[in-house]
Amino acid sequence: MLPTWPKRAPADTLTPVADKKPTTYWDYIKLEQLTALQSGLADSDEEISNDEVLFITVHQIFELWFKLILRELRAARDLFRSPHVAEQELSGAVRKLKRATTILRRCVSHFEVIETLTTRDYLSFRDKLFPASGFQSRQLRQIEIVLGLRDEERIPFGSEGGYVAALKEHDGSASVSMKKVQETVAEGESLREAIDEWLYRTPIDGVGPDASNATEALDAFLERFLENYNSESDIARDIAISHARNQDEVRRIDELYADERASVEAFFTPSEEKGGARRRRIRAAALFVETYRELPLLAWPREVLDSLVEMEQQLTVFRQRHARMVERAIGRRAGTGGTAGVAYLDKTALKYRVFKDLWAIRTLQIRREAASDLDNPDFYSFLQPE
Amino acid sequence: MLPTWPKRAPADTLTPVADKKPTTYWDYIKLEQLTALQSGLADSDEEISNDEVLFITVHQIFELWFKLILRELRAARDLFRSPHVAEQELSGAVRKLKRATTILRRCVSHFEVIETLTTRDYLSFRDKLFPASGFQSRQLRQIEIVLGLRDEERIPFGSEGGYVAALKEHDGSASVSMKKVQETVAEGESLREAIDEWLYRTPIDGVGPDASNATEALDAFLERFLENYNSESDIARDIAISHARNQDEVRRIDELYADERASVEAFFTPSEEKGGARRRRIRAAALFVETYRELPLLAWPREVLDSLVEMEQQLTVFRQRHARMVERAIGRRAGTGGTAGVAYLDKTALKYRVFKDLWAIRTLQIRREAASDLDNPDFYSFLQPE
Amino acid sequence: MLPTWPKRAPADTLTPVADKKPTTYWDYIKLEQLTALQSGLADSDEEISNDEVLFITVHQIFELWFKLILRELRAARDLFRSPHVAEQELSGAVRKLKRATTILRRCVSHFEVIETLTTRDYLSFRDKLFPASGFQSRQLRQIEIVLGLRDEERIPFGSEGGYVAALKEHDGSASVSMKKVQETVAEGESLREAIDEWLYRTPIDGVGPDASNATEALDAFLERFLENYNSESDIARDIAISHARNQDEVRRIDELYADERASVEAFFTPSEEKGGARRRRIRAAALFVETYRELPLLAWPREVLDSLVEMEQQLTVFRQRHARMVERAIGRRAGTGGTAGVAYLDKTALKYRVFKDLWAIRTLQIRREAASDLDNPDFYSFLQPE
Amino acid sequence: MLPTWPKRAPADTLTPVADKKPTTYWDYIKLEQLTALQSGLADSDEEISNDEVLFITVHQIFELWFKLILRELRAARDLFRSPHVAEQELSGAVRKLKRATTILRRCVSHFEVIETLTTRDYLSFRDKLFPASGFQSRQLRQIEIVLGLRDEERIPFGSEGGYVAALKEHDGSASVSMKKVQETVAEGESLREAIDEWLYRTPIDGVGPDASNATEALDAFLERFLENYNSESDIARDIAISHARNQDEVRRIDELYADERASVEAFFTPSEEKGGARRRRIRAAALFVETYRELPLLAWPREVLDSLVEMEQQLTVFRQRHARMVERAIGRRAGTGGTAGVAYLDKTALKYRVFKDLWAIRTLQIRREAASDLDNPDFYSFLQPE
Repeated sequence: MLPTWPKRAPADTLTPVADKKPTTYWDYIKLEQLTALQSGLADSDEEISNDEVLFITVHQIFELWFKLILRELRAARDLFRSPHVAEQELSGAVRKLKRATTILRRCVSHFEVIETLTTRDYLSFRDKLFPASGFQSRQLRQIEIVLGLRDEERIPFGSEGGYVAALKEHDGSASVSMKKVQETVAEGESLREAIDEWLYRTPIDGVGPDASNATEALDAFLERFLENYNSESDIARDIAISHARNQDEVRRIDELYADERASVEAFFTPSEEKGGARRRRIRAAALFVETYRELPLLAWPREVLDSLVEMEQQLTVFRQRHARMVERAIGRRAGTGGTAGVAYLDKTALKYRVFKDLWAIRTLQIRREAASDLDNPDFYSFLQPE
Repeated sequence: MLPTWPKRAPADTLTPVADKKPTTYWDYIKLEQLTALQSGLADSDEEISNDEVLFITVHQIFELWFKLILRELRAARDLFRSPHVAEQELSGAVRKLKRATTILRRCVSHFEVIETLTTRDYLSFRDKLFPASGFQSRQLRQIEIVLGLRDEERIPFGSEGGYVAALKEHDGSASVSMKKVQETVAEGESLREAIDEWLYRTPIDGVGPDASNATEALDAFLERFLENYNSESDIARDIAISHARNQDEVRRIDELYADERASVEAFFTPSEEKGGARRRRIRAAALFVETYRELPLLAWPREVLDSLVEMEQQLTVFRQRHARMVERAIGRRAGTGGTAGVAYLDKTALKYRVFKDLWAIRTLQIRREAASDLDNPDFYSFLQPE
Repeated sequence: MLPTWPKRAPADTLTPVADKKPTTYWDYIKLEQLTALQSGLADSDEEISNDEVLFITVHQIFELWFKLILRELRAARDLFRSPHVAEQELSGAVRKLKRATTILRRCVSHFEVIETLTTRDYLSFRDKLFPASGFQSRQLRQIEIVLGLRDEERIPFGSEGGYVAALKEHDGSASVSMKKVQETVAEGESLREAIDEWLYRTPIDGVGPDASNATEALDAFLERFLENYNSESDIARDIAISHARNQDEVRRIDELYADERASVEAFFTPSEEKGGARRRRIRAAALFVETYRELPLLAWPREVLDSLVEMEQQLTVFRQRHARMVERAIGRRAGTGGTAGVAYLDKTALKYRVFKDLWAIRTLQIRREAASDLDNPDFYSFLQPE
Repeated sequence: MLPTWPKRAPADTLTPVADKKPTTYWDYIKLEQLTALQSGLADSDEEISNDEVLFITVHQIFELWFKLILRELRAARDLFRSPHVAEQELSGAVRKLKRATTILRRCVSHFEVIETLTTRDYLSFRDKLFPASGFQSRQLRQIEIVLGLRDEERIPFGSEGGYVAALKEHDGSASVSMKKVQETVAEGESLREAIDEWLYRTPIDGVGPDASNATEALDAFLERFLENYNSESDIARDIAISHARNQDEVRRIDELYADERASVEAFFTPSEEKGGARRRRIRAAALFVETYRELPLLAWPREVLDSLVEMEQQLTVFRQRHARMVERAIGRRAGTGGTAGVAYLDKTALKYRVFKDLWAIRTLQIRREAASDLDNPDFYSFLQPE
């Protein structure tokens, strides 16, 4: 049954209290408090240069965007955490993820504003910042945690120990930033994990994970897919070989395709420590949704998966653009936080990847025409017959 | 019943013919032919300045984008023209419209490239262009025709008569551009008209237009909506009045809200020459879809409506940005085509609007909590019970 | 003589005081204070929806950008206010103006973030805002004042009286916003006026305004320019006429070009109430700089003029894009501040123009080859012979 | 002496020949030829899908932009190749470089258009492309050659041998693409080399390379700079050490700064095989221009250096964004050209760097206040005393 429609709020609950103070723009957005925060280490921003005010302000704007991103990601995570995700919530989840992506795109473009600072402009106030560093942005850490980046996947940074230690006050006590990061860790299940759970429950060819024939249905789907994949792969290999110039090249191509086939097969038979049968089902479900996305019940799930990939791609674009800005602004000298600077940023950009299974699926998709028919497509249809 | 899944192409239909010539990048995109087309009125682009080559090339790029937009819009139009639009086609239709919007966004940003030309750079080759004009871009005209801009909505231009006459060769004969525009007109039903038909068929609270109780269901929906709208409007008016500083302001506010209520009512009771009962149903359907968008069967239709508005908004942004570029490049002097230039462009930007009903809906929506429950929400659900 | 190079700061003034507290990222950008300001009318942002937090935050970000723009414009204004502007300061002035433009470009793109709010999302908190309005953004008003928009050029808004009155608190007292706007008015000479002064002082063909032959040199320059302009105009007219299809068209073209010539002449002979001889010199100087921009001493002044036009263009783009966002979000209903909404925004976009003379110059420039030689080009050269 | 002003073209050379055919938009931009080139391997684009037409068209648009970039870079190169570059040409050179950057920014944003293709859309025509590859884009190779990327700096690709071999037709003959690349190589001196020559000639503290005291002046400048650099570096190190938590950290910081000092010193004393005294002068000149950029004669040279860095940065951003698009579209499978795909693209992005000295300068700049006064600042002034 459909959830009941949200009840109409009785009009009187909205009737304005006569003596409510009329809203002003400046109170509503707290304008004066907001514009009093750009003084850095000085008492007033009148005492510091336009360049430094710009530097501070752009970082504040990044943090405001991060706050919005964090809220959307938490909302998406909470939605997918629930044991049953109503289908009509999915378009809303997609909007949350797309909003995060839209904001990340803005962030990418903000580096151009910092780049109106020349190296020398920046140097004129750089020493003051020591040993602060953008690495101390708690919200970027929180975003990574909510997404599901694991501690062991992080690249160690400077001499200081991990990213949590970097958030200590200088006297060794926990900063607010540190506490908020720890609270976020304590929130438990990440968006990645919640999505995994949700994928795990997805019925494959009409059969859910708790059905008695769950394994058979899953195996049948994967077997047929692999057969189709291999047949597609053979075609591509044969084309490649037909253009080979010599036997060496034939051998090289043959190996390349054999390797790809082996890695696809391995992807769907993960070892126990890589998650075993549970991981197998999750990966198969993601592939299933991508493959049969036109079915009404799968259209929005597919948008969810695509939005996750789009968002994570944009996060990578953001990290790489960040590295480019730092390189242009100050070159490859040591960062104020004692970091390796540019090289570190470039490394994290490529390594910090959360939705690895979804990215892997892109490597092994096949043409629509090459996919087998389902046994139970009607399972995924609307109530109204077309 | 669901349409059968597209049949798998037998692998052998794809097996490469052994002697097929291997594809090269340069053949595939016809690189040399393409890069030989930037010479304008000269024999070779070596004879003209970088500035003129840039001017020509940016216009060519606009036209290539327009070609893609036109293809997507035609594909969307053809889809909605069919007497029954399968629900699972809608996500594809949305992708077409969003693709057009994505491309329009690129176009907006290309004016910055032309703006690397100074006024003086442009003047050095301007006289050659006479009497050519961007107004002669047939593809922009075709886009407008496919969308559904009516001839009587166009703003007359120069002394030449209409936009079709502007596409004559100088000897009075029909140019290829002119013929293609006329062919597009001859393609008949526009995207706007096709969308209207599709909205007209949308079941309202489970009742389609051919049902015996079609009118009752429609009237009931609109009556409840107007009641809710008026009640929301009363709240807003009362808040406004509670902040009024004097009786004059009270009267002004009262009139403002009364006017809005009257215009909403008028919108849903169009006169016969404005479309009468048919138009009433179309408008009600658009409102219905927007209001109950969370219902599974309405989620994608709502995305369709939103994508149309988003696309038309971007077209307006494009037109206004175009006016800004022209104003910056050459000021407000007469255009090469003898046109009023900037002022004309600014006027068309605001006046050329195709999906007027969809824009109007934005003015009269109400909060979700203020909308009534449906009698038949299950009509719009999935086959699988949640 | 060149100003002496800024003295080296003795190293010891920079030696860190041993007990200075090490800087942290969170203290430096005041992270916790900043992220505590997004609760609107509620006590905490936990109590309001993501949609409302987004709405508040994007407006805050606009205001932070406006703050930066305002600082740059004030700095540029102060520079041009001084009775002598050192030539080597001009590249810095250009950087300030270009920075403002870069930021305005970001602002334009932020409307896409607000557009992730649907109409209905917005309506769910809209009534709370009443009667606040974006029209109450003091910083946008301050930007206009610093640029030099005159009170009499403003378009009246709502029933409230002018833009200053809109910044009263509801009890009629002056808000901080109102006071800051009034202070900005009291700062006197605007950027426009300062630029006018600076242009007025520009030597024309080597002759400054206080030279005994100032008038003769100015007249000679303008006379030669008008002769060249008319000759260019004749060529363009003759080409146009050669393509005319009938006598009516010939007449129309003839009139068009005669009108343009008359308006160019009128532009350089302003009446006394339009500024008379002083205005004539200012306009001629802007034209002079544009025409002979390759001369070393004029290269940076030309960049200044171009940056002003570029910045004002971007401000217009921003205003038009703002109108498009509002139209899409809520349609053409009355704004929360009782304003005419979209139509008002579109009108201000085209009418609020500050650097009118610089825009006019674009309409009357001629090809480089059509400009006369100077009598004293060496006046504008480097000390080192080439 | 200043070069004479370009002579006025006599008006009659421009008088239109009476029988010149009036220009039309479609002829001028060759619209019909242009829009007939999107059929790929088919006879007409009616036979292929919108997805494939989009794929082809976006690549064509990239190539059109590349053509413009190539023209601007060649023009800049030719300018700097001349044995004497007139100072008033420099603002034009900056405009060329900034135009290339503006276009590269557009290119970055075009990947979003390709991303409207899903993996599956792309797979439906992918096999046809084999073995073509974007690696076969001759114009991107030409851009790299004109900029000055050396053959030995390229990363080998696939089994095919170098980038020139990849441009052979399948029968082993030279394609037009290959010939054009070879012609570009044959054009000789690259932009990098021409800039080096120009920097070499730059007078340092008023002393050119051929003066009898050239070495003394150069040595004096560098000695003073290194002294200032070391003193700045000491300050930064002392601040860092004052925040160290233990002796290990003190030692680590000490080493870090000692290393930086050593590498700065090494940078200015290149070995003979790294260019010896000539390279030393080039690097010193770049540093000199950056350091004393406010001097009138150095203002535009500094803009040249900054524009080169900005342009190369944007090229890197383009390459990294390219890698992100490929990864999203098809994952990490083998490319159609048999390439390692994404990983290869990411590697070239970071490794293909042409203006290495200019990038290095960013790492060693010091605050303006920390630079010594010049002995001969007046050398760089305008003729007119301020």
